[in-house]
Amino acid sequence: MYCKCGKKAIIFRRYSGEKLCERCFNKSMVERVKKVIRKYSLIEKNDLIGVGVSGGKDSLVLLHILKKLSEKYPFDLIAITIDEGIKGYRDKSIRLVQKNCKSWGIESKIYSFKEEFGYTLDEIVKRDRELSPCSYCGVFRRYLLNKKARELGCDKLAVGHNLDDEVQTILMNFLRGDLSRFGRTGSYYIRLNEKFVPRIKPLREIPEKEDVIYALVNNIDVEFSECPYAGEAYRNNIREFLNKMEMEQPTTKYSLLRSYDKIYPLLAKNLTKEVRYCRNCGEPTIGEICKTCELLENL
Amino acid sequence: MYCKCGKKAIIFRRYSGEKLCERCFNKSMVERVKKVIRKYSLIEKNDLIGVGVSGGKDSLVLLHILKKLSEKYPFDLIAITIDEGIKGYRDKSIRLVQKNCKSWGIESKIYSFKEEFGYTLDEIVKRDRELSPCSYCGVFRRYLLNKKARELGCDKLAVGHNLDDEVQTILMNFLRGDLSRFGRTGSYYIRLNEKFVPRIKPLREIPEKEDVIYALVNNIDVEFSECPYAGEAYRNNIREFLNKMEMEQPTTKYSLLRSYDKIYPLLAKNLTKEVRYCRNCGEPTIGEICKTCELLENL
Repeated sequence: MYCKCGKKAIIFRRYSGEKLCERCFNKSMVERVKKVIRKYSLIEKNDLIGVGVSGGKDSLVLLHILKKLSEKYPFDLIAITIDEGIKGYRDKSIRLVQKNCKSWGIESKIYSFKEEFGYTLDEIVKRDRELSPCSYCGVFRRYLLNKKARELGCDKLAVGHNLDDEVQTILMNFLRGDLSRFGRTGSYYIRLNEKFVPRIKPLREIPEKEDVIYALVNNIDVEFSECPYAGEAYRNNIREFLNKMEMEQPTTKYSLLRSYDKIYPLLAKNLTKEVRYCRNCGEPTIGEICKTCELLENL
Repeated sequence: MYCKCGKKAIIFRRYSGEKLCERCFNKSMVERVKKVIRKYSLIEKNDLIGVGVSGGKDSLVLLHILKKLSEKYPFDLIAITIDEGIKGYRDKSIRLVQKNCKSWGIESKIYSFKEEFGYTLDEIVKRDRELSPCSYCGVFRRYLLNKKARELGCDKLAVGHNLDDEVQTILMNFLRGDLSRFGRTGSYYIRLNEKFVPRIKPLREIPEKEDVIYALVNNIDVEFSECPYAGEAYRNNIREFLNKMEMEQPTTKYSLLRSYDKIYPLLAKNLTKEVRYCRNCGEPTIGEICKTCELLENL
């Protein structure tokens, strides 16, 4: 199997028929991210981009590619990491974030649940056995990422969601009839209000598999182990199904993303709710009190 | 397991928690069809409703329930059957349609591919081995149903699509990125133009399983064998997946339908194309020449 440049190919993209060598694959990854950024104007001149970096493959690949682009284009980067407080897992990945940021010359900021909310996730899990750990973690993580990105003066917050994450989420919300969430997974960002830093997803057209390959061929040291609290059976079924459909029709994931991208503007226009400020903490919220404050009262 | 009326239950609806005896189940089926008809104004006073009846469980259950309703409400029915010309399959089901229509006192009309297009489906399959039989059959059947319903003076054309058919089609078109089809599966009907008889789907909220039970408990003689040409692998995967999700979350199919019903009006407004008349046969079409005439040229 050979690349069009004549070198030995390391990847065959079933959905496009391309065979690529290491060099052409790397180039194509950066080009694709650049294309998505251009298409949806995700990054503007002189933007400071906060990058949510967990230490997993997606966020480190995102940081690596954005770093390359920031050397050619006028925008700056800062890595933001949330330490949820998961012993034996997050402590390891934080060391990887610090190591990579140091070697790439990117400023790295770390904020912890413990410092902000008073509890590590491990402690939260012990205090509340009713709600799943993910219910707390997702809400708290988004809250803290947004707040800290804003305080750091970031114009956008880039997150590492890849194609697989996106299509799984889209299908999950569609099946659940959760159209308000369904209207929040879009390609372009919406400036909801001044306290909400717009989230951008430069990797949303990159299949998960290619994130892994990119990390491997570029010797990026990433945390491959899974969160000990992870256990979304519902999402796992959806992942399995989409992978099966993709095997049969190798463009299924892209088709689904295209479907969604055509519906998204219609939904965003019709479903976007007014964003207010939490009566308690002042952060953006849809209700009276933000979800974070609501959950904190449980503890 | 007992019905709320005290009799022995014959069905447990996981999605609603209801346990129903035969009598309450029958009543509930008719009530649900009536509710869908009311909600979307599918049938108006003095309508003549053409019912597409293949002889399978869905279409005969539809006819049976509409017959019951037509005895109480001011609308009329006529059964329209398409004989595609499939030896050993359609001939059997046509006899069932005729037998049931006779015993229920409903006029039954039968129109064949052979008479209209010059070929039975069996003959078409022998002439063209490239396109699937379903490609011809679907297009020709819809064409003929619409044309004959219009010639018979029908105000609407009722088809037997159940909840499972609907959610499978919705998801299939969504995965395929086929948004123009995605915008055609809606709850209410659209009067595209005067030559197009609006299609209504009174069973779209009835799970397939309950169609089967209704046919059984009412001793409706239906054709249970499958079309020998049927073989939609893609749809089968989707069916399997949705059944699995429904097992885990017993309201998945309804949630998906609700999601779609909320998106549908937005899509219908934005995606409905102008309908013209085929240059060749005069029937409604989106292009210059209708799909039926296009396919007939292949043969």
